Amino acid sequence: MKFSPQDQIKQLTQHTAQVLPQAELVKKLERKKPLKIKFGADPTAADLHLGHAVVLSKLRQFQDLGHEIIFLIGDFTARIGDPTGKSKTRPPLSEEQIKQNAATYLEQVVKILDKKKLKIVYNSKWLSKLSFADVLKLCGKVTLARITERDDFAKRIKSNTAIGLHELLYPIMQGYDSVELHADVELGGTDQTFNLLMGRHMQEQSGQEGQIVLTMPILEGLDGTEKMSKSLNNYVGLNEDAKQAFAKLMSISDKLMWRYYALLLLKSESEIKQMQQDVKIEKRHPMNLKKTLAFEIIERFWSKEDALEGQQNFEAIFQQKDYSQALQVKISNEISSPCWIVDLLKNTGAVKTSSEAKRLIEAGSVSINNKKVEEFHSQANWKQGSILKVGKKKIFKLI
Amino acid sequence: MKFSPQDQIKQLTQHTAQVLPQAELVKKLERKKPLKIKFGADPTAADLHLGHAVVLSKLRQFQDLGHEIIFLIGDFTARIGDPTGKSKTRPPLSEEQIKQNAATYLEQVVKILDKKKLKIVYNSKWLSKLSFADVLKLCGKVTLARITERDDFAKRIKSNTAIGLHELLYPIMQGYDSVELHADVELGGTDQTFNLLMGRHMQEQSGQEGQIVLTMPILEGLDGTEKMSKSLNNYVGLNEDAKQAFAKLMSISDKLMWRYYALLLLKSESEIKQMQQDVKIEKRHPMNLKKTLAFEIIERFWSKEDALEGQQNFEAIFQQKDYSQALQVKISNEISSPCWIVDLLKNTGAVKTSSEAKRLIEAGSVSINNKKVEEFHSQANWKQGSILKVGKKKIFKLI
Repeated sequence: MKFSPQDQIKQLTQHTAQVLPQAELVKKLERKKPLKIKFGADPTAADLHLGHAVVLSKLRQFQDLGHEIIFLIGDFTARIGDPTGKSKTRPPLSEEQIKQNAATYLEQVVKILDKKKLKIVYNSKWLSKLSFADVLKLCGKVTLARITERDDFAKRIKSNTAIGLHELLYPIMQGYDSVELHADVELGGTDQTFNLLMGRHMQEQSGQEGQIVLTMPILEGLDGTEKMSKSLNNYVGLNEDAKQAFAKLMSISDKLMWRYYALLLLKSESEIKQMQQDVKIEKRHPMNLKKTLAFEIIERFWSKEDALEGQQNFEAIFQQKDYSQALQVKISNEISSPCWIVDLLKNTGAVKTSSEAKRLIEAGSVSINNKKVEEFHSQANWKQGSILKVGKKKIFKLI
Repeated sequence: MKFSPQDQIKQLTQHTAQVLPQAELVKKLERKKPLKIKFGADPTAADLHLGHAVVLSKLRQFQDLGHEIIFLIGDFTARIGDPTGKSKTRPPLSEEQIKQNAATYLEQVVKILDKKKLKIVYNSKWLSKLSFADVLKLCGKVTLARITERDDFAKRIKSNTAIGLHELLYPIMQGYDSVELHADVELGGTDQTFNLLMGRHMQEQSGQEGQIVLTMPILEGLDGTEKMSKSLNNYVGLNEDAKQAFAKLMSISDKLMWRYYALLLLKSESEIKQMQQDVKIEKRHPMNLKKTLAFEIIERFWSKEDALEGQQNFEAIFQQKDYSQALQVKISNEISSPCWIVDLLKNTGAVKTSSEAKRLIEAGSVSINNKKVEEFHSQANWKQGSILKVGKKKIFKLI
């Protein structure tokens, strides 16, 4: 432990949403022994994105300070699937699938975490051994009122949406994982606060010292308003092409830039304040700071080579207007030429709705091979290699 | 099966509170195979009383018609105890205690049921083998809303009284017992309706034909208003001295007599109507009908000899005023002579409250050795063998 407890606390609590309770984290650090940091993940075939990187980056910080990360794969639930028997949304996964998903997950995780300092565990190891009598004893440690405080349960009760009795047992399982692991700290997004606190509760009920619950804010997506998510298409995937990721990062607002500096690059508040001051007195240009941000994020989560390439590519396309390197977008075979411009725009993913397309066209922000599209209700001619521009930031080479 | 399905239905549905659904019971009976009738009991050291005899008598009727009674001892829960860990009210019982309690229970049960036609099972046999995964699957068959419909849960939620999560699993267990037993019918008091329906639900969810739920009314105690229970001291215990039981039965109101005829002796409605008509036209005296009731109950649940002795004893004391055979009551050593009359009355159990004692004394209904007690605030002299009369029906020999 090369850093003092005080130094560690300063770093670790920075940019967190909550540390419950902070005083106990100090106490644990003062023992000067590596802490056990729990982080749980579902072995569903997930494409991780920068939203996930927020918690992973905080975990990396713990790792760098000498603590042990226990990466828990929640294979037990996945193996059972959704037991309602009514919904087909969550069929049980085979052991083979779970292993493969876990591997995919870990491949992405080690872009951020140090592989060598990672302990990987599967909760089926202990959960599959529990008997009904054990389950009853665990359940006896929690009241119904406490469980139904959980936000999504509370909402569903209010709106009369069915809750399967088994769902109430899931927080119990997560909590029991902490007991088995003797976790000192558990990390998650703020949407996980309830489940993490359940771990603390279950540990205390079992005579252990309760874990510290450390939550990180939820990262806004590229649009700056909604939570980053794949389904909203406002994300940068950890497996994405670095050039594309660089360009996407360059499209965020100046305001969002500070947030990404804090949560993805873990810059301290004073560093951020200094940069903001520099912008204010026109010492530095926001565009340059954004390039630095994009460069450092790609360098951190991809590689330095990727970052250099991403920057070159961005500068060629957006600054030198050399579109030969523009992002290639495969257009579906169903879209012929000519076709309705709105269909083409939707197919690239540049717009999500017709009204969005209409607004952009009417603002004169859409062009094909530098020829502005004038009418919303019009046909567009395009071919392999055509350059489609949508607004200032989206430039695609159609293939 | 010597009775036709139609004859059986007529007998079996008589005096029931509910048969859910009756049409299905007909269908099951029409298959002309013995039905599996489930009845569950907690292996707590219980003194059974005539309140329990209502359901047991209905079970005996099923037995007499050729059906199989499965007497389920709920040893699994008893072995776990109350897992809250906070309340000491329900400590786990040892296997030894459970066996002994079950034996005590069965000794009393076979006063009503035919021992030779009784299948006894313990639910730990299957419940102790369930894994966490099995429990999750079972829980997935039930919604939270459904479980919290149960009367006592609903009341506790409304009054913010804590419900341990494990408590929600108890109906699931009872329900799963029905699945394991492939029960055709389950019997219980009306207070058990929810749990019995859960058995039906769980069977249907498991692809079985759902059991019929047959509930019996709750028997009023000797006071004619409250439910018969030991704690209210308005009961006749199955292990009680037959002479005492006979005298207690003679103390009930005329109105309650019809209820006991129906629920304990299973007299048909037409038989009861005939008796009521006979009283109305003064062909029979209610006192004689009550003697017949007491005689037949003692004959049924004790023996014919007990019934004869009980009747002789009652007639000697209450009709020939020969108190030598009066019910002996042991007075606590703490009660000296003389003592406050109110303390003496309470000690015999004849009254529960001081105000009840006051009312009876002021009405001139209390005497010791035929000497009326005049004052509520007075001392009473008594000795071994003194006869204490409280009202018309309670006559004790103090020892």
